[in-house]
Amino acid sequence: MSKQWNELAERMAELKDLSSVIGLLSWDQETVMPAKAGSSRAEQTATIQTILHERLSHPRLGELLESLAGDASLTAAQKASVRNLTFERNRATKLPVGLVRELAETQSRSVEAWRSARASKKFSEFAPFVSKLIQIRQQQADLWGHAGERYDALLQGYEPGMSTARLEPLFANLRQKLVPLVKAIAHAEKRPDAGFVKKNAWGTDKQWKFTMHLLESMGFDLEAGRQDRSAHPFSSGANVWDVRLTNRFDEADPFSSFFSALHEGGHGLYEQGFDPALHRTYATGAPSMGLHESQSRLWENLVGRSLPFWRAFSPKLREHFGRELEGVSAEQVHGAVNVVQPSLIRVEADEVTYNLHILLRFELELALIRGDLAPKDLPGAWNERMKSYLGVVPPHDGVGVLQDIHWSWGEFGYFPTYTLGNLYSVCWMEAAEKSLPKLWTEIERGNLIPLRDWLRDNVHRNGYIEPAEPLVQRVTGAQLSEEPFLRYLWKKFGPIYGVHAA
Amino acid sequence: MSKQWNELAERMAELKDLSSVIGLLSWDQETVMPAKAGSSRAEQTATIQTILHERLSHPRLGELLESLAGDASLTAAQKASVRNLTFERNRATKLPVGLVRELAETQSRSVEAWRSARASKKFSEFAPFVSKLIQIRQQQADLWGHAGERYDALLQGYEPGMSTARLEPLFANLRQKLVPLVKAIAHAEKRPDAGFVKKNAWGTDKQWKFTMHLLESMGFDLEAGRQDRSAHPFSSGANVWDVRLTNRFDEADPFSSFFSALHEGGHGLYEQGFDPALHRTYATGAPSMGLHESQSRLWENLVGRSLPFWRAFSPKLREHFGRELEGVSAEQVHGAVNVVQPSLIRVEADEVTYNLHILLRFELELALIRGDLAPKDLPGAWNERMKSYLGVVPPHDGVGVLQDIHWSWGEFGYFPTYTLGNLYSVCWMEAAEKSLPKLWTEIERGNLIPLRDWLRDNVHRNGYIEPAEPLVQRVTGAQLSEEPFLRYLWKKFGPIYGVHAA
Repeated sequence: MSKQWNELAERMAELKDLSSVIGLLSWDQETVMPAKAGSSRAEQTATIQTILHERLSHPRLGELLESLAGDASLTAAQKASVRNLTFERNRATKLPVGLVRELAETQSRSVEAWRSARASKKFSEFAPFVSKLIQIRQQQADLWGHAGERYDALLQGYEPGMSTARLEPLFANLRQKLVPLVKAIAHAEKRPDAGFVKKNAWGTDKQWKFTMHLLESMGFDLEAGRQDRSAHPFSSGANVWDVRLTNRFDEADPFSSFFSALHEGGHGLYEQGFDPALHRTYATGAPSMGLHESQSRLWENLVGRSLPFWRAFSPKLREHFGRELEGVSAEQVHGAVNVVQPSLIRVEADEVTYNLHILLRFELELALIRGDLAPKDLPGAWNERMKSYLGVVPPHDGVGVLQDIHWSWGEFGYFPTYTLGNLYSVCWMEAAEKSLPKLWTEIERGNLIPLRDWLRDNVHRNGYIEPAEPLVQRVTGAQLSEEPFLRYLWKKFGPIYGVHAA
Repeated sequence: MSKQWNELAERMAELKDLSSVIGLLSWDQETVMPAKAGSSRAEQTATIQTILHERLSHPRLGELLESLAGDASLTAAQKASVRNLTFERNRATKLPVGLVRELAETQSRSVEAWRSARASKKFSEFAPFVSKLIQIRQQQADLWGHAGERYDALLQGYEPGMSTARLEPLFANLRQKLVPLVKAIAHAEKRPDAGFVKKNAWGTDKQWKFTMHLLESMGFDLEAGRQDRSAHPFSSGANVWDVRLTNRFDEADPFSSFFSALHEGGHGLYEQGFDPALHRTYATGAPSMGLHESQSRLWENLVGRSLPFWRAFSPKLREHFGRELEGVSAEQVHGAVNVVQPSLIRVEADEVTYNLHILLRFELELALIRGDLAPKDLPGAWNERMKSYLGVVPPHDGVGVLQDIHWSWGEFGYFPTYTLGNLYSVCWMEAAEKSLPKLWTEIERGNLIPLRDWLRDNVHRNGYIEPAEPLVQRVTGAQLSEEPFLRYLWKKFGPIYGVHAA
């Protein structure tokens, strides 16, 4: 180990500790913090963030990274740390402090404006904030640098290595091929019956226990993580020994908590699965948001909405929720959790229509950043696309263009990672199936551990040594494409709805 | 406001944020942190502590404090901030980094050695660690500075302004006057009957609810604080809007959780009661550990073990724990929570014998720091004093000299603050009684708010503007003395045991 590497390692350790403390403060805020502590928490978080930024901008760190950048004696993990930290440092230092502060202030005022506009169902109140945020984000993109496409610079904050030029045709193909499936299902005569959900009692304490059972079954280590309650489910990880998931429980909608447990549990397994040897370096963590999402979607959808899964877990459902479920078969549960229905709200969308919600957002935010769409014209463009892609039109902006919080944070470039997560998830699953011939037999027996272990070895341990796409390609042999995902959808929903590809 | 003051205020805000983050990390560790996260938590905490120390040692902070030290234009609160931060900065900067690290490492190894020695009941295994800790603490005391009495320098870390010269005669008087009361009670024929405790069922969920009821009754703001479970009850406060108490629940020993709630609730009310205008300055917080303890002891003992309190709360006990308590009177509960019995373990001791446990520890740790007692002779000295003060002798060191964790942390000088807390608590209560003639009538009606409000106005709001003793003297008119406390004990325990002062 060179002296310079050791000095870098010390600085990385401090930076990673500061990041993990920010994560813990945020977890605390969303789960246990007393109501009146909000503004003092903002101060504490800002203080740690300022110190983190100060350390990240330190000239000595820049020197170390530069001199280690070409060092061939470094291991792959060390090289990855140098590469990833250089990327993060560049992003942080290229922005003048004034612009960072302007964005932070605009964000906070925009979130308030968004909440109020959503409540009053009027996009016009929010439009000036979108204009301002777009303007700041365009400036940021120019400062970070790009080859003519500002959206690239934003996108790469969430999905390093990805470009608009690749996303546009990919998403256009996906959209074109999704529409026939949505239409076929809309006209299908066969439809699953979810009636038993409404007939049964789904106490929230029982839901808590069942979700804990699900997390244990997935192999989520409850000595290195926990589940708590929060207003919106999320997952966060300080390091592999401290991964925190949250969930919410609704008496009338038990499957919401079950699938949130599988979804956040998928994120959580990823966080617990990084190679512990990478601790306190910049080679740990996920290479991209899309890759992180591929883990949550895999567990939520590919496993959790499969028939073999419910063959194992519908008896468990009866154990937890009682005899009223005695007559309900695995097939019935499987049908109930796979109802396809074009609808207004993204977070409630099914697997088939979900990506259309994303594609719509991608197209609109790309047009905004390019300057091809004026913020005031957003609602019209939104409603038009909803009608064309999904056949539904929002009765007002509150359940239309104002439904997501993301844009109020200026998060343009984030939405595509959801769809990339879906596409990647199928690549992983196809590779796992090839590698583990008994995978589905084991799942049908309730044994989810072989899958977890395969993901751990092939995806999780890597952390951020290899970037997202090269990793997917090396492990699965697949190029990024809409095909595997569409193959999966037709194979699954064909039998449920009695429909066939044309 | 001067420019210099503003610069100091900015630096204070950052320092206070860092301290509160350390407090939150510690709370998290004791309550919710996954078991495997211990060593990564130690790293995170050490990183924040190092940054705090770096900021505290910054030369610019020293310059600001020096130039503001004589500034007559500052308000009383501002002067207090300058005074208190100067004290803390001096303590931090006078120690070389090597010694700080040596203490931290010795502490960590000593705690392990102490746990193991306690389990094997052999002090001899722990003795070398005590020697090492004493040696380091003596060095620290010399670096901090003192006028010939090293113990003063240690003591003042917990109780600024206090001296060994004042404690020694005070504690000797207290001991001399306690022994006759202990003897009188030991020979009393009248004894309270606590039989109902064992006969009843005390579910831990019901205990949880009852302790929450107690905290609400005290006026503890549950929107600016919370109660959780932990192995040992404690309280911690990030600021007045975020105060966290913990408790533990034992099916067989319900009063333990009730009195812990009152005790930690007393600390918690203090933390919630600082003037919010002092937020992020060094004029907030308690002036001493003894003063903090005066608040917990007041609520636990002076209120919680009084007859008027149980006249109000024994009906509530029946509401929470059911009909088996129907025949149990307030007088019976009052008797049961006031059983006096010399015993081996400090934390289980009653109000009468408790301070004898402290005086013994004070005498021994003072002799250790002075070099008048060799660590290897501690068990003999301990057992001798137990016999002489309390009439009981530990059957082995595990329930004798090894019972407390404090010395394994090198915390010499801390124990006296417990007794100071008891002495101060009675001063506050006598002053409150004078000022609120209906105080006990209100308590008997279950209304604890007038007492909370009196404490808030007279003790809590002050924070650390006025130091401990001047504050007590100004508000209560009392000089530090054992008399009020002994007066209180005789007045209370005389009737319970049918004994009278000679």
